Amino acid sequence: MINNTKILDCTLRDGGYYTNWDFDNKLVLNYCKLMESLPIDYVEIGYRSISLKGYLGEYFYLPVYLLKRLKLLMPSKKLTIILNEKDIRPEHLDEVLAPCKPYVTLVRIAIDPKNFERAIALAVAVKSMGFEVGFNVMYMSKWKEDPSFLDLLEGIDETVDYFYMVDSFGGVNPSEVQEIISLVKSKTNIPLGFHGHNNLEMALINTLTAVEQGCSIIDGTITGMGRGAGNLRTELFLIYSSSRGNIDINYTELGNVVSGFEALKSNYNWGTNLPYMFSGANSLPQKQVMEWVGLNRYPISSILNALKNQKDDVSDNIKLPVLEKSSTFKKAVILGGGNYAKEHEDAIKILIEKDENICLIHAGTRNVSSYLDSKSKQFYTLIGFESEKLLNQIGDFSKIKHKCIYPPYPRKMGTIIPEEIKDDSLEVEEIEFTNLTSESPLCIAVQAAIDLGVSSILLAGFDGYETTLNQHQFTLSQENQQIIDDLLEVDNVELVSITPTKYKNIITKSIYSLIE
Amino acid sequence: MINNTKILDCTLRDGGYYTNWDFDNKLVLNYCKLMESLPIDYVEIGYRSISLKGYLGEYFYLPVYLLKRLKLLMPSKKLTIILNEKDIRPEHLDEVLAPCKPYVTLVRIAIDPKNFERAIALAVAVKSMGFEVGFNVMYMSKWKEDPSFLDLLEGIDETVDYFYMVDSFGGVNPSEVQEIISLVKSKTNIPLGFHGHNNLEMALINTLTAVEQGCSIIDGTITGMGRGAGNLRTELFLIYSSSRGNIDINYTELGNVVSGFEALKSNYNWGTNLPYMFSGANSLPQKQVMEWVGLNRYPISSILNALKNQKDDVSDNIKLPVLEKSSTFKKAVILGGGNYAKEHEDAIKILIEKDENICLIHAGTRNVSSYLDSKSKQFYTLIGFESEKLLNQIGDFSKIKHKCIYPPYPRKMGTIIPEEIKDDSLEVEEIEFTNLTSESPLCIAVQAAIDLGVSSILLAGFDGYETTLNQHQFTLSQENQQIIDDLLEVDNVELVSITPTKYKNIITKSIYSLIE
Repeated sequence: MINNTKILDCTLRDGGYYTNWDFDNKLVLNYCKLMESLPIDYVEIGYRSISLKGYLGEYFYLPVYLLKRLKLLMPSKKLTIILNEKDIRPEHLDEVLAPCKPYVTLVRIAIDPKNFERAIALAVAVKSMGFEVGFNVMYMSKWKEDPSFLDLLEGIDETVDYFYMVDSFGGVNPSEVQEIISLVKSKTNIPLGFHGHNNLEMALINTLTAVEQGCSIIDGTITGMGRGAGNLRTELFLIYSSSRGNIDINYTELGNVVSGFEALKSNYNWGTNLPYMFSGANSLPQKQVMEWVGLNRYPISSILNALKNQKDDVSDNIKLPVLEKSSTFKKAVILGGGNYAKEHEDAIKILIEKDENICLIHAGTRNVSSYLDSKSKQFYTLIGFESEKLLNQIGDFSKIKHKCIYPPYPRKMGTIIPEEIKDDSLEVEEIEFTNLTSESPLCIAVQAAIDLGVSSILLAGFDGYETTLNQHQFTLSQENQQIIDDLLEVDNVELVSITPTKYKNIITKSIYSLIE
Repeated sequence: MINNTKILDCTLRDGGYYTNWDFDNKLVLNYCKLMESLPIDYVEIGYRSISLKGYLGEYFYLPVYLLKRLKLLMPSKKLTIILNEKDIRPEHLDEVLAPCKPYVTLVRIAIDPKNFERAIALAVAVKSMGFEVGFNVMYMSKWKEDPSFLDLLEGIDETVDYFYMVDSFGGVNPSEVQEIISLVKSKTNIPLGFHGHNNLEMALINTLTAVEQGCSIIDGTITGMGRGAGNLRTELFLIYSSSRGNIDINYTELGNVVSGFEALKSNYNWGTNLPYMFSGANSLPQKQVMEWVGLNRYPISSILNALKNQKDDVSDNIKLPVLEKSSTFKKAVILGGGNYAKEHEDAIKILIEKDENICLIHAGTRNVSSYLDSKSKQFYTLIGFESEKLLNQIGDFSKIKHKCIYPPYPRKMGTIIPEEIKDDSLEVEEIEFTNLTSESPLCIAVQAAIDLGVSSILLAGFDGYETTLNQHQFTLSQENQQIIDDLLEVDNVELVSITPTKYKNIITKSIYSLIE
């Protein structure tokens, strides 16, 4: 508590969006020690949930041994968990909530305003079990458009202890915070809370404004770790507050824990960036942006263009003519972006030019310009908004006779097809050889090769990644491996790598053994 | 210009604090192309200066060929340079400024308010050469304490085109911005400018507030690149503004240039962090913090503690008893933090225990706990606030008979000596063997060994760094190499490394050849 404002730190809960709710034990230990020493009231340690599909880690389900351990580590803190209203009904509470009773003080409920009535029923049930109840209501910047759900707050002062306004899009500014608080205050006397996001680097000023306007409790996370652009940094709020009043902070412990989370951050890269700024400023949903940014496949400019089209309501998902199945080629060289593509370029050119039954398929645009002079038949597989990147490299497209090939319709990120290449743009009809649904250049290139009737696919420049990967490279490398493995199952198509590769299960045959 | 607010981008000028004013040509090319396409009025491309000591790069001196090239790349922009008032007098202008005339529109002058009168004389001279003149006046958060220099603004409306308020400490908040603007407006009609820093992530909200209060021009840099915690991010201001009005932004170019600077950022690490937050919140000078943070030698917690002592005016620079010159030992093993120290630990222990003429000097605290059981004579060299780190590893210090050795008085970062180790703390009197003034653990350890009378220094665990270094490692590695080279010049002291090392000029003799 600082000057009558309560602080809730939700690093483990909100940070879990990046780590899939698994955390290193040592880091958690230091974190708990730090929390115990700081003027923080509530520590939100994760979700509790019924069993959901897919792997979700320790801090998503918070087994009782973990609750117990965390309570022992932070005896003076009010431990908090959060429920996803969309997944949890009152009948689940015996299973989900009852075991928490000895350890947990506050139960928060994450709520979409459209389910507000259902949420109140859940809150009544949670309250009757003896917990404090917090509402985390999303999309605060949209409430002005339809504030009717706020009328349901009448008469539930006894049920709900905190009513949190969540800046889900990360796009509110201080004067909007002020305005929305007035609106909510006109409807209820429940103590208010504020959960800010940092897309526009306004988490601190919005939080300070919320406090000034009478919010009783605010959320933060260490290093701002949290979904998308992340949250108010707890340490920033503490340091700012300590310069305005006397607050006891152990800087040695704070420094150590912040450094620990910064190390994680250098791998997962939370915090704001151009796409998050854009989606925040324009109140576009975060979840999709986080997927696009997280994969590190799409250039930032593609993501920005896709977001801009969403904002402007541009219809950028156009059905293209399909690449028909044929028996046009016997072999395809698929060219990746690895260093070996460049290194063995001369040999690759000789290979593709000596035989008209071979075509070259560019998986991505990286090496396009090196092959402009080549007389071979070429294809460009393009993801997202790479058309512009391609044009930048090629210059006058009308002189080129090659085709551009896109993923099947509809494409996740949309696709603007520039006028210059419109007549030469096709899409693969369907990805048949793998269940991977993501838009990977290798995946499209392989499907195109199959559709072109080849019986032999030669990979060049798929070097693979070093063993010390960051999270993005790890994901992309796993995906490529999956594509390779699935392709190996396809009958009648031989797969070899003609430059060195770290990918597994694939046979390597030197490019130099294939040319004279 | 956006809604009557002019924008000045000073990425190359302010970013130069990190790159020593050298930039990759390709990056600059893309940057110029982007600037040319954006609604930005002024582009500040660097300093011009008389010759100063030490190496300062291309964009600090801006030779005429570069001015010419940049003007060709950005024909529609008003190019801007800045002069450091402390270095430049009117008599320098013929040399420094005259050659810029064909290319540069605006000349800014960076001014400490205490030199305001002298700055006005310089401004008059610059104006008479036909340039627009901007004042960048520092320390705006301190002006309230002594606003008398503002009276000198009277009568110079014709000389100064822009009066910039610079948030040098990065600590102002929006209501202070408002307050200071009122103060300045009461003294002058010169169009106002605002240059914000991002220590508290308030650069955007402060800039928006400044605009709302009638500032005519604002500064930003791509990715916020700039001294200390950095500046308002130009792209954030643009994206925020574009969500509130129609602004034409080429997102492909913006995305590419931002990515280019983000790549630099992952090396140089500008942006806010705990020390910058603290110094901003408490209006402490940035320059020193930038040195401390930049070196990456001091743990964040040490820097925070040092800053806290500055803020609280704690006298943390205590003169300690001096390590007297003696002939106590013949040999010293100096133990670094490299992996080989751990790997060959058993052998090192055998070496130091077999001979009472050998002592072990820990350069840093990394391996302290491994040697607690050893019966050898040991010393701990401690920099900054490592005493606490040492105590954490040792536990009960009273059981240890070893001494702690600190750098000579006065120590840059101060030193808190905990009660437990007070009686066992010494400082080296003087660093004699090298001119290096920085507080390096190796440097102190070597000097201590010399003072203890050894004729042989054995380095263990100074592995050296990989060739792909980041900037910090590069600096530290160069410094260690310098220490080694300087020590090799010392007569009567033999230097060998007893574990593998990447450092140069040093003889390696295996630890295993020295034990039985």
